[in-house]
Amino acid sequence: MKFSCDKISLLNAVNKVIKGVTPRTTLPILQGILLTAKDNKLVMYSTDMEIGIECKVDAEIVEEGSIVVSSKVFSDLVRKLPENTIYFTTDQDYIVNIKCGLSEFTISGNSSEEFPEIPEVLKEITFSINQNVLKEMIKMTSFCVAQDMTRPILTGILMEISKNTINMVALDGYRMAIKKYISEDLLLKEFDDFSVVIPGTTANELVRIMEDNDDNVYVSFTGNQILFEINDTKVISKLLDGNYMNYKAVIPKDFKSIVIIEKDDLIGAIDRASLLASNKSNLIKFTFNERELIISSNSEKGKMSERVNIDIEGNLIEIAFNSRYLLEALRVIDSEKIKMNMINSINPMIITPVEDDDYLYMVLPVKLNG
Amino acid sequence: MKFSCDKISLLNAVNKVIKGVTPRTTLPILQGILLTAKDNKLVMYSTDMEIGIECKVDAEIVEEGSIVVSSKVFSDLVRKLPENTIYFTTDQDYIVNIKCGLSEFTISGNSSEEFPEIPEVLKEITFSINQNVLKEMIKMTSFCVAQDMTRPILTGILMEISKNTINMVALDGYRMAIKKYISEDLLLKEFDDFSVVIPGTTANELVRIMEDNDDNVYVSFTGNQILFEINDTKVISKLLDGNYMNYKAVIPKDFKSIVIIEKDDLIGAIDRASLLASNKSNLIKFTFNERELIISSNSEKGKMSERVNIDIEGNLIEIAFNSRYLLEALRVIDSEKIKMNMINSINPMIITPVEDDDYLYMVLPVKLNG
Repeated sequence: MKFSCDKISLLNAVNKVIKGVTPRTTLPILQGILLTAKDNKLVMYSTDMEIGIECKVDAEIVEEGSIVVSSKVFSDLVRKLPENTIYFTTDQDYIVNIKCGLSEFTISGNSSEEFPEIPEVLKEITFSINQNVLKEMIKMTSFCVAQDMTRPILTGILMEISKNTINMVALDGYRMAIKKYISEDLLLKEFDDFSVVIPGTTANELVRIMEDNDDNVYVSFTGNQILFEINDTKVISKLLDGNYMNYKAVIPKDFKSIVIIEKDDLIGAIDRASLLASNKSNLIKFTFNERELIISSNSEKGKMSERVNIDIEGNLIEIAFNSRYLLEALRVIDSEKIKMNMINSINPMIITPVEDDDYLYMVLPVKLNG
Repeated sequence: MKFSCDKISLLNAVNKVIKGVTPRTTLPILQGILLTAKDNKLVMYSTDMEIGIECKVDAEIVEEGSIVVSSKVFSDLVRKLPENTIYFTTDQDYIVNIKCGLSEFTISGNSSEEFPEIPEVLKEITFSINQNVLKEMIKMTSFCVAQDMTRPILTGILMEISKNTINMVALDGYRMAIKKYISEDLLLKEFDDFSVVIPGTTANELVRIMEDNDDNVYVSFTGNQILFEINDTKVISKLLDGNYMNYKAVIPKDFKSIVIIEKDDLIGAIDRASLLASNKSNLIKFTFNERELIISSNSEKGKMSERVNIDIEGNLIEIAFNSRYLLEALRVIDSEKIKMNMINSINPMIITPVEDDDYLYMVLPVKLNG
């Protein structure tokens, strides 16, 4: 194998591919990155057998071929090389020679035969979505996926696709987030409504790999695999097996108490209340009067209370929450005001942005003593 | 005690004082910050019995007094309060009430009687120095202080003061850094030449507390204590006991090989060479010819070599170093070119900036095998 490429493009791609390498693996070869020189591209690929990340870089190929290099040594090296053309040569003993400027390196690689092949995802079903939109949808839901493995399906994000609408849903038994997106030019070809469950880890990895621009992501499915393509980068992941729960059935109706409040004031007050909440429960209390929400907390560290102005319709109730469950949701909502919909101190509260019908957050209250 | 003050000034001061609180202490009271309201100032003080940090903030004092509060709770609270006036009240049971905007907090404090008193440093000897200059002097030397306690005196930085000159020296048996500063208006009153040894931890703490401006630091000594005053902040530290070694005696003369080289090229090449140096020894080799320095390394990870252009006078030698010992020094030198002065592959090398006579770095080579 013999090729040359530009350092900046290579580094940019290495920084993405390295995210697919898991530090803890029983298969030592997976600590490596597969380099393949072919058709005037250098293709880099890493995988932990759950997720695979592929990046292509323009390269001048003198001799095609492939090799596996240590992800640690290779990425450190590319990062530290001068900004110049990098020349690679490998021999039949898997020795890699790298030249750049006045520097010359020799490192040993491994045969690419031992490395898992890049899976082919048949593009049976495909749609495209702006990467900033997809990133926002994941950020607004993924924090709700279950962290424990008692119900593995809940460690993923449900994605429902129906003509011009995508719904993403995550829930962990204490809270649930639903984000909807509607677009007229979503589907690339016609297909029936369907849904998949994407592992939470894949979704978070994808957020880290997506860039901050409006380029499209092409999403394809086949069998139990999903493929995300963004320009020269591909993320391939397994989907979670099993049926997701009927989440619509648990959303309460007939609210008795509806409150509108400035989001930033609420975040500030909850954040301060959580300082003096017990470390274990993060319990903070909401008490409503006709003009104000009084947020309070009380623990061995001390006690606090803060008043926030509100508009309220309905009953003046008392209700308590885990402050973390409120803050995580409020911080992903991009709306000046939010609406809190409550029934009583036992039933779940629904939070929705006032300026956006496409997001719903549901959270269970904590039982008040006495 | 009853006073009010502005949130931003208070936060700024808390962020400095908190650095004096050590997370590991056998005396629980030292996890606290002493607050004293007096003479229209709130004085905050923290100490770990080695270093003490005091900050003053303008305050409106209604009732003088003092109390100790948990550094963790208090600093979190001040950080998260809205930007507004903060009102403090304490009662005889050491309960602290804090009001700010629509927020009200109650936390428990402790009697100030158990807290160590702020030491008085008699200003027998005093000089003043620009804080950016002092920061640079510390940064250029402190990385050389000994990390192990076999010779405690070497864990400090020697500061020698002689009329219009300050010398700072640190050494650990493998390398030594000397930074000189000359100023006509250094001394605030006449005194004889003298020297002290400042603990390395104090010096590093001071760097973290000093701001990025040309304000003066007033330095005073008495007995075994040193006091640094920067505007409303004081850092008080013990000095190290004992005689510092006669460092001038170990500086070699009569160099046989003098090399001038671009500093950034050298740093880049050493940085890359260290990638493939053994993790344990960091050993990299220098080989000189009449136009170039060839830097190379070789380990189980692979091997590399890089050529850097030089001007050389004298012998063409081979010499090896711990790359970390070179990089740490080169990164604090602010000069485009540096001079490397060598005798042979066994004696120490001296590095000096070409554009600055006031810095000297000495480093022992590593023995080459064979």
